[in-house]
Amino acid sequence: MIKSRAAVAFAPNQPLQIVEVDVAPPKAGEVLVRIVASGVCHTDAYTLSGEDSEGVFPCILGHEGGGIVEAVGEGVTSLAVGDHVIPLYTAECRTCKFCTSGKTNLCQAVRATQGKGLMPDGTTRFSYQGEPIYHYMGCSTFSEYTVLPEISLAKIPQEAPLEKVCLLGCGVTTGIGAVLNTAKVTEGASVAIFGLGGIGLAAVIGAKMAKAGRIIAVDINPAKFAIAQELGATEFVNPRDYAKPIQEVIVEMTDGGVDYSFECVGNVQLMRAALECCHKGWGESTIIGVAGAGQEISTRPFQLVTGRVWRGSAFGGVKGRTELPNYVAKAQRGEIPLDTFITYTMGLDDINQAFDLMHEGKSIRTVIHF
Amino acid sequence: MIKSRAAVAFAPNQPLQIVEVDVAPPKAGEVLVRIVASGVCHTDAYTLSGEDSEGVFPCILGHEGGGIVEAVGEGVTSLAVGDHVIPLYTAECRTCKFCTSGKTNLCQAVRATQGKGLMPDGTTRFSYQGEPIYHYMGCSTFSEYTVLPEISLAKIPQEAPLEKVCLLGCGVTTGIGAVLNTAKVTEGASVAIFGLGGIGLAAVIGAKMAKAGRIIAVDINPAKFAIAQELGATEFVNPRDYAKPIQEVIVEMTDGGVDYSFECVGNVQLMRAALECCHKGWGESTIIGVAGAGQEISTRPFQLVTGRVWRGSAFGGVKGRTELPNYVAKAQRGEIPLDTFITYTMGLDDINQAFDLMHEGKSIRTVIHF
Repeated sequence: MIKSRAAVAFAPNQPLQIVEVDVAPPKAGEVLVRIVASGVCHTDAYTLSGEDSEGVFPCILGHEGGGIVEAVGEGVTSLAVGDHVIPLYTAECRTCKFCTSGKTNLCQAVRATQGKGLMPDGTTRFSYQGEPIYHYMGCSTFSEYTVLPEISLAKIPQEAPLEKVCLLGCGVTTGIGAVLNTAKVTEGASVAIFGLGGIGLAAVIGAKMAKAGRIIAVDINPAKFAIAQELGATEFVNPRDYAKPIQEVIVEMTDGGVDYSFECVGNVQLMRAALECCHKGWGESTIIGVAGAGQEISTRPFQLVTGRVWRGSAFGGVKGRTELPNYVAKAQRGEIPLDTFITYTMGLDDINQAFDLMHEGKSIRTVIHF
Repeated sequence: MIKSRAAVAFAPNQPLQIVEVDVAPPKAGEVLVRIVASGVCHTDAYTLSGEDSEGVFPCILGHEGGGIVEAVGEGVTSLAVGDHVIPLYTAECRTCKFCTSGKTNLCQAVRATQGKGLMPDGTTRFSYQGEPIYHYMGCSTFSEYTVLPEISLAKIPQEAPLEKVCLLGCGVTTGIGAVLNTAKVTEGASVAIFGLGGIGLAAVIGAKMAKAGRIIAVDINPAKFAIAQELGATEFVNPRDYAKPIQEVIVEMTDGGVDYSFECVGNVQLMRAALECCHKGWGESTIIGVAGAGQEISTRPFQLVTGRVWRGSAFGGVKGRTELPNYVAKAQRGEIPLDTFITYTMGLDDINQAFDLMHEGKSIRTVIHF
């Protein structure tokens, strides 16, 4: 058992408390990781709000981290002490029917226990004053030390700065991957991206990488366009500038609709608009944002019968252990400008401020340095 | 001007009236066709009900026909008097951006006027006692003579029996094409087909052609399973046999869901079930049925974010002039058993009876012989 400083969410809608928790050693197939840095993502805030049906309290949030292997459990062969790693909330076991299908990144090997805040053996490694603290998304990166299954860690080169590439553990990879892996945007295509938070801006980067012809950035905050343009957006549309539905505006400005659209907010009305701004006959819309519990998307089926396709993407369709090293390499070569995403850096003690900045729309990402 | 016996829909929800209408000669780019036979499809009944927002009365319904070219207008080069043809409610001009996209069969060349019951020049060729009668779906096959744009006619071999291959003008091609062209079902895949009317049974044929591993036929009428099985269905599920939602039943019987599903009814609740019975990570659902005006589909976005894909199909994604001759050839070789679809044949005078048989669920297709 080791001591670890951690930001614990003791109850929904309460500030995180910085306390010293106990971390049990890794069991068979598990790895103890010392977290070096972690981004603060909207999904952490969503779970903290109490609206996430999978949220289990008390827990240690955080799922966008970078760290160093501190110890390995029995039978761990792919990682060794000192390896640099990015925790994965979507594991990659390489043996389940999902991993071997060649069609999806949604490994289900540890899904059931992870959804309950537990390690694969059904127990937790965290405790505080003798009481169990639950894991979160299989990562719990808001802790100096955390334990993950071996299959939930991507090994990356030691040269990569963990306090930057930690962002590849969620938002940036999700946005880029949704464009390249899920939608497979083609050269010259027109693209509409709804929402210019971290994921939407990453989708802009992905569209630029795919050599899209038009990259239309949509947001109700015009201040966000400068950064979107810097990353590759060619046009900006503010729905508040128009009386008519935004899908009609985009259909008109693109002579029938875009080839691809992406919803990067988690708003079900915007998901509908993103579908309906697609071109008849072939336009494809990809949902990336996570909607509130119980919310539903809807449209007239005629939208699909006339050739539009509605799909979704989780972690950008990226298989973490296999593909994340390539994303890290791209970041190292400057093809993914991670610095653009880092609005603030601060210590763990200030983490509640990071949530405030996010809620106020003042940050793309705050990175916590341990 | 020639005289033509026709079944005219003078008003919504009224029986068709068999009268002698006047048919004006084909204008430039148009073709006069003598209809030999026509199937009666649910879409005809839907429009007759008055619920179709594009229904214009008085009109001549019918869109699943076979006929012989009787005269051609100025500039018509691809067809000559005596050619056998199948009318197309989805034209194929081969020059619009849809036709040349390589991505869709939804040619828009005559779409706008067709939707208003008019020929491309904005007028109608039908009249009765001097008053205009409107076209329907660009076809109006419930008339001894009809006029269509050259680009709305598929030329087929003279040997093919028009009173059978007329069914390739809509339902049969729609079902098969949705499986082969739109969903692109792969060998060994599991497939669920919702609704065993003409389109659903054709989808079963398509799934058999694609060498699907499991073909699960879903209908609330168990009497329909015998014919589905004859065409290739491997299992039958009657939603009324279960207390739980049918999507849960199918997910359980397929260890996680099917690879592909098809909604062939036009029921928005069934469209949702068809999506949700698909396998996490890769299952794709295709909507073929036409829902009532104003009705909407809905689901939780999580269904898409976890890898399911929602799409739709119109006329099976088939380009009529290019691909229908191949469908006719398949029927001629016995690969599409059209006889199985023909429950009744009758003359034009009895056409209201054909609608009654369809409403009562007693026919797959009634073919009207002229």
